[in-house]
Amino acid sequence: MGLVVQKYGGSSVADAASIRRVARRIAETKEAGHDVTVIVSAMGDTTDELNDLAHKVSPNPPGREMDMLLTAGERISMALLAMAIHDLGHEARSYTGSQAGLITDSAHGRARIIDITPGRIQSAIADGAIPIVAGFQGVSHDSKDVTTLGRGGSDTTAVALAVALKAEVCEIYTDVDGIFTADPRAVGRAHKVDTISYDEMLELAAVGAKVLHLRCVEFARRFGMPIHVRSTFSNATGTWVVADPTEGGTMEQPIISGVAADLNDAKITIVSVKDEPGVAAAIFRALAKAGVNIDMIVQNVSAQATGRTDVTFTCPTADMARALQALFDARDEIDFETLTSDEDIAKVSLVGAGMRSNPGVSATFFSALSDAGVNIEMISTSEIRISVVTSAAAAPEALRAVHTAFGLDADGEAVVYAGTGR
Amino acid sequence: MGLVVQKYGGSSVADAASIRRVARRIAETKEAGHDVTVIVSAMGDTTDELNDLAHKVSPNPPGREMDMLLTAGERISMALLAMAIHDLGHEARSYTGSQAGLITDSAHGRARIIDITPGRIQSAIADGAIPIVAGFQGVSHDSKDVTTLGRGGSDTTAVALAVALKAEVCEIYTDVDGIFTADPRAVGRAHKVDTISYDEMLELAAVGAKVLHLRCVEFARRFGMPIHVRSTFSNATGTWVVADPTEGGTMEQPIISGVAADLNDAKITIVSVKDEPGVAAAIFRALAKAGVNIDMIVQNVSAQATGRTDVTFTCPTADMARALQALFDARDEIDFETLTSDEDIAKVSLVGAGMRSNPGVSATFFSALSDAGVNIEMISTSEIRISVVTSAAAAPEALRAVHTAFGLDADGEAVVYAGTGR
Repeated sequence: MGLVVQKYGGSSVADAASIRRVARRIAETKEAGHDVTVIVSAMGDTTDELNDLAHKVSPNPPGREMDMLLTAGERISMALLAMAIHDLGHEARSYTGSQAGLITDSAHGRARIIDITPGRIQSAIADGAIPIVAGFQGVSHDSKDVTTLGRGGSDTTAVALAVALKAEVCEIYTDVDGIFTADPRAVGRAHKVDTISYDEMLELAAVGAKVLHLRCVEFARRFGMPIHVRSTFSNATGTWVVADPTEGGTMEQPIISGVAADLNDAKITIVSVKDEPGVAAAIFRALAKAGVNIDMIVQNVSAQATGRTDVTFTCPTADMARALQALFDARDEIDFETLTSDEDIAKVSLVGAGMRSNPGVSATFFSALSDAGVNIEMISTSEIRISVVTSAAAAPEALRAVHTAFGLDADGEAVVYAGTGR
Repeated sequence: MGLVVQKYGGSSVADAASIRRVARRIAETKEAGHDVTVIVSAMGDTTDELNDLAHKVSPNPPGREMDMLLTAGERISMALLAMAIHDLGHEARSYTGSQAGLITDSAHGRARIIDITPGRIQSAIADGAIPIVAGFQGVSHDSKDVTTLGRGGSDTTAVALAVALKAEVCEIYTDVDGIFTADPRAVGRAHKVDTISYDEMLELAAVGAKVLHLRCVEFARRFGMPIHVRSTFSNATGTWVVADPTEGGTMEQPIISGVAADLNDAKITIVSVKDEPGVAAAIFRALAKAGVNIDMIVQNVSAQATGRTDVTFTCPTADMARALQALFDARDEIDFETLTSDEDIAKVSLVGAGMRSNPGVSATFFSALSDAGVNIEMISTSEIRISVVTSAAAAPEALRAVHTAFGLDADGEAVVYAGTGR
């Protein structure tokens, strides 16, 4: 049988007992006749604790040293996991990102993988050993310094290594049973999806679904690596993320794969700018220079009498103050009356590859929101996604209404997290 | 001005405040015009905590994985120290043992340095940066795996790197003011020694003085690297460890440099072995095969009537059970009546290069012990050391009596630790 790459997140290795449980799971996979390579995150809150320690020592720690510090986290978890597997009678060898050949650029804290040279991992597999690789980290091509990959880095490590090693599947173990039609904490009747396409998963990840990071899904899509998202705490099949969920199956692809709400954005309106060419360019040049990530953009129809209009956009709440400052600094060039901003917003999104061929989807979506009394502030769409901005307060009801309107509610009991309670 | 290598132990970097204090000290050295390279240990009790964690996960963790785990400790402290120096306006770059070019053999947990290729450290110094190097760790020449150097490893790293970088001095920062004539916790009137020879320091380290490890002193002696042992908590001159303390000085070298007691040994007596050639060889071959470190050996005069005698030796208490087992296993070959053992012993030693040319030293030593009512169980001597084994209970009084007899007592107040209270 072929090679299985397994990735375990921080909550799966939070303490000694959890590490021993994960070790048993890995040993069982090996005993079933598979080769196994494991990617592991830092234990529980280790990364947060190291971050706190850094900020006690220095208000503005250099990126190179932050990466050196944070990579201690996976070093601890991977060595402990290797020990626990060793106790079960299998040889396991831990490897840092650098040792595993994860070559990155030099952008500390958010490095991109540029190459993988997994010679030592391949040798270990050939020896019959189980390599345990630190997630989230690599070594820079230019300076040979240790780097971290930033958010979603461990999932990305897992998929990238699965591709490099030509694995059959990349299993992402987490504290939920798979990908759900909505966050079960917000929508009690949400249910697990059996399969989902890379495109749908990308849209879901982009609009706030937390289970898989955008970056890892992009990587999997580019190289066609199947991802199996499943629970550390059960042996049940989770969700398969693949190129074409209908392939080889008898089921018709569902129209809608899920709904999600993202509460991490803020909305800024630039009131009364001239409705003429070049204004939008000036606005978004100023914001880009300040490093603000823009998500949705809406421009109202110009009031003919004045020749002026409003421009509204959303960005991460963390970028809001910087965005406002950048706009004020460029006030002479942009020429606006005033700025308004709102942090208490939510982006509610509906994702499904089937909406391409089902023209009634938008109508059902907006009717459901209207019937639920949800006020819509902005709208944006892609080929397989519709997103609206609502008040943060209205988001839970909006999610539930849409989930029900598309027939996503589970028939029986509400699906609940099979998590650790963390 | 030349290069200064500074080594800071775990108690010097126990928390964020300590790390910032050490950073200021390093910055001051740099600002005084020196190039500086720093070796740092893991923070406070980090190594013990990681050890505990390992034994919660596995009763018998493999050495390779223990080393991977433990080296996370210095990774954390060195990154934090580099951040704190950066805040003071100096560039600092942290390096693992592997990055610093510390090439070792493959003996995990007690690796020996076989080469140093400090290219990255030299480049950093040439750039005007301050390299911060992880103590206690290296990378194995054969397997490229991470190794640890075992006890005294950080001091040894510091001296070895000082030699490789052709430093002017290797400063070992600790929580005491230098090398004392005796442990100030045991002998209240102990005082600091200004200079001491490598030979004397080796004897003192071998008989239980804890400040410098045997291995680091051996390294310094072989390459003639001056060591300056001094306090992290004051700017006072500490103790210089050099080849010849009298060189260039006006002071005559003191006869005695210190006394020490070591409570970590046990005593085993092999009762009634044949007094004939080959018996001792059989005994110590059996013990060597079991990996028992032998210290002192005494063989009684044979009782003529029986042709049999007793052999007594000391070894680390940790090796005692293994030693007894090894002797029982070789009973047929060795042919003895029985074994007796005693853990409650102390080795009390007097060290001084001056005793070579002062024949009265032994007489003064034994008179002092006799006057204090201390019973002597074994005696062993080197050219510059006399050691006796006493009961553990008698050791404190033995130390004080010998310290006084050789005029080592400080005139004024008792010298006390300038430590952290840890």
